[in-house]
Amino acid sequence: MNSRSSWRTSLYTIIFGHTTRAGRTFDLILIGAILISVAAVMLDSVTAIRDRWGPILYAAEWAFTILFTIEYLLRLACHPKPWRYAISFFGIVELLSILPTYLSIILPSSRYLLIIRILRVLRVYRILKLVQYMGEADRLIVALRESRRKISIFFLAVVSLAVILGSGMYMVEGPSNGFTSIPRSVYWAIVTLTTVGYGDVTPHTPWGQALASLVMILGYAIIAVPTSIVTVELTKAHGMSSQRPSCGSCNRAGHAPDARYCKHCGESLGP
Amino acid sequence: MNSRSSWRTSLYTIIFGHTTRAGRTFDLILIGAILISVAAVMLDSVTAIRDRWGPILYAAEWAFTILFTIEYLLRLACHPKPWRYAISFFGIVELLSILPTYLSIILPSSRYLLIIRILRVLRVYRILKLVQYMGEADRLIVALRESRRKISIFFLAVVSLAVILGSGMYMVEGPSNGFTSIPRSVYWAIVTLTTVGYGDVTPHTPWGQALASLVMILGYAIIAVPTSIVTVELTKAHGMSSQRPSCGSCNRAGHAPDARYCKHCGESLGP
Amino acid sequence: MNSRSSWRTSLYTIIFGHTTRAGRTFDLILIGAILISVAAVMLDSVTAIRDRWGPILYAAEWAFTILFTIEYLLRLACHPKPWRYAISFFGIVELLSILPTYLSIILPSSRYLLIIRILRVLRVYRILKLVQYMGEADRLIVALRESRRKISIFFLAVVSLAVILGSGMYMVEGPSNGFTSIPRSVYWAIVTLTTVGYGDVTPHTPWGQALASLVMILGYAIIAVPTSIVTVELTKAHGMSSQRPSCGSCNRAGHAPDARYCKHCGESLGP
Amino acid sequence: MNSRSSWRTSLYTIIFGHTTRAGRTFDLILIGAILISVAAVMLDSVTAIRDRWGPILYAAEWAFTILFTIEYLLRLACHPKPWRYAISFFGIVELLSILPTYLSIILPSSRYLLIIRILRVLRVYRILKLVQYMGEADRLIVALRESRRKISIFFLAVVSLAVILGSGMYMVEGPSNGFTSIPRSVYWAIVTLTTVGYGDVTPHTPWGQALASLVMILGYAIIAVPTSIVTVELTKAHGMSSQRPSCGSCNRAGHAPDARYCKHCGESLGP
Repeated sequence: MNSRSSWRTSLYTIIFGHTTRAGRTFDLILIGAILISVAAVMLDSVTAIRDRWGPILYAAEWAFTILFTIEYLLRLACHPKPWRYAISFFGIVELLSILPTYLSIILPSSRYLLIIRILRVLRVYRILKLVQYMGEADRLIVALRESRRKISIFFLAVVSLAVILGSGMYMVEGPSNGFTSIPRSVYWAIVTLTTVGYGDVTPHTPWGQALASLVMILGYAIIAVPTSIVTVELTKAHGMSSQRPSCGSCNRAGHAPDARYCKHCGESLGP
Repeated sequence: MNSRSSWRTSLYTIIFGHTTRAGRTFDLILIGAILISVAAVMLDSVTAIRDRWGPILYAAEWAFTILFTIEYLLRLACHPKPWRYAISFFGIVELLSILPTYLSIILPSSRYLLIIRILRVLRVYRILKLVQYMGEADRLIVALRESRRKISIFFLAVVSLAVILGSGMYMVEGPSNGFTSIPRSVYWAIVTLTTVGYGDVTPHTPWGQALASLVMILGYAIIAVPTSIVTVELTKAHGMSSQRPSCGSCNRAGHAPDARYCKHCGESLGP
Repeated sequence: MNSRSSWRTSLYTIIFGHTTRAGRTFDLILIGAILISVAAVMLDSVTAIRDRWGPILYAAEWAFTILFTIEYLLRLACHPKPWRYAISFFGIVELLSILPTYLSIILPSSRYLLIIRILRVLRVYRILKLVQYMGEADRLIVALRESRRKISIFFLAVVSLAVILGSGMYMVEGPSNGFTSIPRSVYWAIVTLTTVGYGDVTPHTPWGQALASLVMILGYAIIAVPTSIVTVELTKAHGMSSQRPSCGSCNRAGHAPDARYCKHCGESLGP
Repeated sequence: MNSRSSWRTSLYTIIFGHTTRAGRTFDLILIGAILISVAAVMLDSVTAIRDRWGPILYAAEWAFTILFTIEYLLRLACHPKPWRYAISFFGIVELLSILPTYLSIILPSSRYLLIIRILRVLRVYRILKLVQYMGEADRLIVALRESRRKISIFFLAVVSLAVILGSGMYMVEGPSNGFTSIPRSVYWAIVTLTTVGYGDVTPHTPWGQALASLVMILGYAIIAVPTSIVTVELTKAHGMSSQRPSCGSCNRAGHAPDARYCKHCGESLGP
């Protein structure tokens, strides 16, 4: 029983861990397999490639599915709480990356199963998680989480601006110039505000072009807002992590680099 | 009389307030109604949907108009100064969001009334005001207000640059290549400077493409200006609101918002 | 003689000054005249408007030219050093804004004289100069001047990147897909790197689209560079102007807000 | 032997150095020659120019090749370790900038040799290296090197987002609307996320336009991330290089680069 437990522990270290040599090798092989299988799904959608390499891609798809199925079962087997793993974010992503191939036996092959297969690419983020431990992405995530609310308000503002400006453009240009409905005009307003500018819907009348110019300049101005929000938050996140160690007396952190006394209890912070 | 006053007060708390449970529920229901009614107006402009669901959308429009009319009258009834409410920004927006439907009985239904109906979406900003009390959007608004002047000067510069570059392009490319007039060339210059790039007017001659390349690189460079202005103002807004008064003992400033003791001399900073 | 001098002085105060009431009124009228005359030149280039309002626009052009000629002569008359004014930047711009109309009597009316007339718009910057005295645009100009060198190096890098990537695309896509020559491919690379994206030249082959994707992501990344340069310079420009007054002992400035002793000579800076 | 060594030394100073007058003159002439030869290669690809000026461009190409060959041999001759120079980055670039012309005698003239000729433009970076010594570009390079990892993670995220969003769009719009395969849809997603927006592939169905709007707003938001990363790193790079060591008397840091006395205790900071 103890030996079985140690077998599970060492398997767990390899499959879930990132610190041992075996664990890193496993990670690298897995990432390679994921990227190749995603590439295979993508190439399979190109008619010319499918016509020529169809059977090989089909075989590869099954090979990867069986490989990922074995991996999924091993993860379930060695995890201390299999059910908790199964309902975790990555547990579900891993189940979804093998299910579509099995379903394609029963159901007629459908385009809609493709997107589920493509979700495999999310599995690569296991390694991003690894990177996170290295403290590289940490501050960026903190900064984005901190600015979440402000950015939500900002995008609410952008969307309602797009609704008003799009409706105005619908009135100015009208259906005869390609602005066939308000939703389409709102789509135009978003294309313009975000400075994407496809050019599939463009103003043709002088007043429409004047209003469009205003929308473009507005879009150019408001791109400054999310950028400055994230910059300020990232600066704060950096400031916090570059601070002094916590106070030896009251054990609280957050001291500035030039602080000599604990700002919470007034004790000397030492050299 | 007193009971009527208390009835008005409690209604006021529900309709205008955001702190009580009833007030929040009212806010949420109102936002739902606004968003659905705006969506109805937008969908009504799509020919295919209008042909099929026209009567239902017409009924919905009247239902929402009556609902908003009742709400408007209640707001007038419970506000301590009804006239002041009526001429406030949101008072006018709320009146404008119900008027067009009543006007459509007298006047022939016009596309131009649509934009007024769409302005309803502005009413959602009542909740943004609520958010503002939560101090989230506050600093952003301060930063934008502070940088208002600089951004105005900046956009005056962008527009006059667009006029000069557009006229230059009109000379270089000429009417035969789509640059039919100076206003249209200025429109092209704005499309290019803001990096929108529809592609409805593009340079065809080598010299035109060289001038256009210069315009693009300029546009790429000057996008840095509003971004840096807002970033600096936002940093200042953060700095100001997070700064404590200077130490009473050593008179030095620069204390973090959570500091209780002076980081320079170790004295208590007071409450 | 003295009275004539005082007449010149008071005229100088009105025409060149921005501080007196009369000077400001003159500024506002002049800006109005400049903007209307620029609008007239722009509208004159629209065929439909020219056909209908041609004679009126022609008359307006002559009226503004005579007005600006009188103003130019008055400026020469009241300036203490007329020749120095005549060869200054604004002196030349003002001469160029009246010359083309007179030249059009002798020479056949040419499209190429238009751009010179349009340069009138630069005269509006006299008021920007006024704004500069108000200290609003000052720091922005300092920040841009400070980052001038870094931005030049940056754009040298962008242009040489565009040359290499454009040539690569010329090889990958070739003349049959619209990349008819290297200069045109470099134009495409600039359109793509700056995220303008007209769509007049687009990749058609899979390898071309892959290379284009790389170019787009590169362009997306390098837009960060000028933005961060200007932000840092603007932060520095702000920091400098928010500093303490200069030392009373050695008269040198540049002290941080929390400095108690002059960093140059060690004297106390006072409260 | 000693005279030959001194001849090599003085040649080395002229060819590789940037400090002497002769060295700077050589640099300027070389940059002129590089830019003209790159322009010649570019113009040679334009059919109209080739037809007319073909022989002159051919002669210029040979003249520059011989000039660069002499320069390359001189560099080899005067470098203290010729082999080390030959395998250095610029050594290889310089060899590659002369080889294609010689190869074109043996091999049939090929479009693929063009890109190698164009790489000559990289030689201009010798002068950028010079600029680097002037300390202008230094901090920018430090900031970009520091943010290398974060930007890599960021672009991994952008690419996997493009894969998922592109696949989703392939499902929503389908081959009949121009989204013929997943790779092409991923290309569309990158065009949209980076706000380039060619318009060669655009959504036609309402759901497709809704998803595209989401992609655009996402792209608009995430452009904030690289900008803020580089800004923060550049601020740090500035801070680090402008910081003095801490005071020897009170042991406190944070002194400005021009400080001669400690701003905290007034003691001299030393040379």
